[in-house]
Amino acid sequence: MKKKENELKVLFLGGVGEIGKNMTALECGDDIIIIDCGSIFPTESMPGIDLVIPDFTYLMERKDKVRGVLLTHGHEDHIGSLPYLLKELNVPVFATKLTLMLVENKLKEHRLQEVDLNCVKPGTKLTLGCFETEFINVNHSIAGAVALAIRTPQGVVFHSGDFKMDHTPVAGEPMDLKRISEIGKEGVTLFLCESTNIERPGYTMSERVVGQTLDGIFAENVTRRLIIATFASNVHRLQQILDLAKKYGRKVAFSGRSMINVAEAALSIGELSYNAEDVVDIEKIKKIPDKELVILCTGSQGEPMSALTRMASGEFNRVKVDGNDTVILSASPIPGNEKSVYRVINNLYRLGAEVIYESLENVHVSGHACKEELKLLHTLLKPKYFMPVHGEYRHLKKHVDLAVSLGLNPACALIAQIGSAVSVTQKQIKFTESFHAGATLVDGDSMDGNDEILADRRHMAEDGLLVLALTLSAGSGELLAPPKILCRGFLAEGLDKLLTEGAFAVTTALSSLSKATREEVIVTARRALKNCVYRSSKQNPVIVTAVTEI
Amino acid sequence: MKKKENELKVLFLGGVGEIGKNMTALECGDDIIIIDCGSIFPTESMPGIDLVIPDFTYLMERKDKVRGVLLTHGHEDHIGSLPYLLKELNVPVFATKLTLMLVENKLKEHRLQEVDLNCVKPGTKLTLGCFETEFINVNHSIAGAVALAIRTPQGVVFHSGDFKMDHTPVAGEPMDLKRISEIGKEGVTLFLCESTNIERPGYTMSERVVGQTLDGIFAENVTRRLIIATFASNVHRLQQILDLAKKYGRKVAFSGRSMINVAEAALSIGELSYNAEDVVDIEKIKKIPDKELVILCTGSQGEPMSALTRMASGEFNRVKVDGNDTVILSASPIPGNEKSVYRVINNLYRLGAEVIYESLENVHVSGHACKEELKLLHTLLKPKYFMPVHGEYRHLKKHVDLAVSLGLNPACALIAQIGSAVSVTQKQIKFTESFHAGATLVDGDSMDGNDEILADRRHMAEDGLLVLALTLSAGSGELLAPPKILCRGFLAEGLDKLLTEGAFAVTTALSSLSKATREEVIVTARRALKNCVYRSSKQNPVIVTAVTEI
Repeated sequence: MKKKENELKVLFLGGVGEIGKNMTALECGDDIIIIDCGSIFPTESMPGIDLVIPDFTYLMERKDKVRGVLLTHGHEDHIGSLPYLLKELNVPVFATKLTLMLVENKLKEHRLQEVDLNCVKPGTKLTLGCFETEFINVNHSIAGAVALAIRTPQGVVFHSGDFKMDHTPVAGEPMDLKRISEIGKEGVTLFLCESTNIERPGYTMSERVVGQTLDGIFAENVTRRLIIATFASNVHRLQQILDLAKKYGRKVAFSGRSMINVAEAALSIGELSYNAEDVVDIEKIKKIPDKELVILCTGSQGEPMSALTRMASGEFNRVKVDGNDTVILSASPIPGNEKSVYRVINNLYRLGAEVIYESLENVHVSGHACKEELKLLHTLLKPKYFMPVHGEYRHLKKHVDLAVSLGLNPACALIAQIGSAVSVTQKQIKFTESFHAGATLVDGDSMDGNDEILADRRHMAEDGLLVLALTLSAGSGELLAPPKILCRGFLAEGLDKLLTEGAFAVTTALSSLSKATREEVIVTARRALKNCVYRSSKQNPVIVTAVTEI
Repeated sequence: MKKKENELKVLFLGGVGEIGKNMTALECGDDIIIIDCGSIFPTESMPGIDLVIPDFTYLMERKDKVRGVLLTHGHEDHIGSLPYLLKELNVPVFATKLTLMLVENKLKEHRLQEVDLNCVKPGTKLTLGCFETEFINVNHSIAGAVALAIRTPQGVVFHSGDFKMDHTPVAGEPMDLKRISEIGKEGVTLFLCESTNIERPGYTMSERVVGQTLDGIFAENVTRRLIIATFASNVHRLQQILDLAKKYGRKVAFSGRSMINVAEAALSIGELSYNAEDVVDIEKIKKIPDKELVILCTGSQGEPMSALTRMASGEFNRVKVDGNDTVILSASPIPGNEKSVYRVINNLYRLGAEVIYESLENVHVSGHACKEELKLLHTLLKPKYFMPVHGEYRHLKKHVDLAVSLGLNPACALIAQIGSAVSVTQKQIKFTESFHAGATLVDGDSMDGNDEILADRRHMAEDGLLVLALTLSAGSGELLAPPKILCRGFLAEGLDKLLTEGAFAVTTALSSLSKATREEVIVTARRALKNCVYRSSKQNPVIVTAVTEI
């Protein structure tokens, strides 16, 4: 039995075969620890869904074993599901300062109190059951990102989190390659590594490069107002813009709810530094000359309700964009957001603004390691086993190819999917029986979103709807009134005629039934209407049949 | 009166402020000619819509003046609306050989007969009313592309169509820069120029470069089966692949309806050349060793029913992808298609195939002129007036900037939107009153798609639907049975309870009405249900109320 208890299980709850909702768990004997708890945005095939989170069933069935949640950093794809998990599972959470601040904001929105939040630092060592975790400083597009070196009964599991190697970070330290190489020397059993930029050659540029580009833009636009959109959580980007504003004698106005919240909170915890007099309330910018102002706002992804999107469509009373504005989108469109982003850019141009966006590459740099950085990390760690995480299948596949090109035995690399469980010992790594996992769809307060409901929604959106209301005699089952047919979102030529024909078809079909059950009446009526509609219009709308018996 | 008749009007029906459904008309005195008649794919905000075409109202009200349609080439965004126009307006169509072939295929699908189709060649001069058009050879990602030099009573209007300058075309001639410079010397009043690649510096590479890259891939993959996905209409790409297959001793199997149709038709008109024995029916490929086969298929955009998409998901019985396949996507994802394309790539990797796509850039080249080519064309034509076409607003704006940087007076450049009418004389260019124009949504056989129907569809998709069926006494207006509530695509916790509460709320609300009209009953019942549902679930589904009176 001892051997079995010592075996390490790695459970992939999300973030493999997809970019988003990262979540992995380690299980050994009676202990489980969770690494990250992210969410993902719904796709276009999930109309009306607000958020997609991992299915927590496996953890819910083992609540007593869960010792805590470790967070690598504060992006949504790493913390977005945490409130939903904590509603069901009251376990301690461990993260660095900025991550915790973002988690606190989130928990407040969900009115979750009495959560056991614990602040850690790079270098902190934390014991949870049989796991000892060391937090290691890495660079990323958010402050306070860490990798995790987790000592388990089967040796070290190293989880990279999201990272890049920035040797000239805007604040804080470069990635702690020295400590990582020591850990590599000690020996790593399993390396879990993010794969986002595996297709990009070379190195990711330093965040400082963005500052240099922006400096040039400030210098060239001395008479114009500047509007810069970026992610609120990228506090190093914000810091660079605040510093440039000071250098060029401009005040900064924050715009957009999350920008204002993050800027204030980051200031309070020391992750951002600026003087109160260098900032101006967005309500009061009308008094400030264009050349003395920078507006720092949300909306770099063209989000519908964001500050920049509303400025671009002329719906934002506080900021009216005109020919003296230079707008900088300091971000790349996340795949899927291109159309919204370009709509915003087109609208800004229509208002006469100058717009600077991705074509001038250095107004944004990625937060993820490119190929050469990934190679370096593999080389320092020289793990026994490797499993790529955080990527679609093609990313994971190419990451395995990269590891093999560096000398890893192909049998020592596995590609997981959501629900994969892997057993790890010093002697071998192998898939074991997969567990119940997947996606939970969140719509408002409800977490019951399921395929049938989505299929109905898609069908109604594609083909529209007919309502067929029948009033029957409870005794004889006879029609007491002509069938009533209503439609919504249904498109056909000669609609009135079609509806009249439909009612006639239903009446005719029902008149040929005798002593039918209620179910038979419904089926017969629906079929008659469906056939009639299809014949005339070649369309198959959703048909909802409401039967009242009196 | 004479002066007024001689004024030239340019009418923008589509393709400005958007990429797609290109359509422009020239009107002078009693004559109208139409340049292109394209369609565009619906956006995600148009669920269930199959196609979007220009609103033809302006032309329908002036049917007698329309002398003909000139097509610059055979892509959907230039010919896709033609059947819908020709159903209403029987006018002659003028195009080159391949364009006509694609138009004929399209007309067959629409069962349109007796259309007056006329084949032209580069160099052809054609008189329609007061317009004399000269067709001029250009290069593009389809054979038979032409620019138009149209002599009007106000001088020459030059329309570039879609073009690039390929000095080493795979077939046919390079763009006829000699003739273009002669026309420039003669004098051009108005230049209408496409703007697709205005954001790209430099020159677009020759189509022949793709052949060289593919040659390398053929050479490196001698033992493997090759599957190449590209646009069927890019016959020069097909020709290069057919030639390489012959060189490397492989047979070609065409797969996908449009690939088979275009390959056969293009062969019959001489736009493609291959021997029957070098081609094999896709049904018979099982007999052919992998190393002696190339499958040339549709699906480079991840289209759901295409050959490649079905191969990738393992649903295509004729081609089972495995570890000995190298798949080449010889195309770039059109913006908006990225997710579908990457889904296909991920699936192909899962099946063990090697996949070569855009990261290896030279497996595809653009069909559109980059900045330096655009500059060259401007310089050769030296037009008096310039209007950019074929682009979103940002493209059009940047294209005007480019023209001005080459010396054009900014007052001589205008940016149109759909519905813009421009008056042109030798002395001035100016906007005149805009005309009725826009988008017509096609859903199946119907062309009545409108905003209300789409809003209903989106609402049902976002929030689901409740049906409220009431049976009332025709005399007293009293409820004869409990209200019946059904739902579709509606998501709320405690749904059954909610529906019971809803029925109770409706009954209560109606019981307090006395001598109400039918309309009052409906409004009261809906409001009671809506409020009750919102209170319990914070959701606002669509509510359809069906009232039967007996």
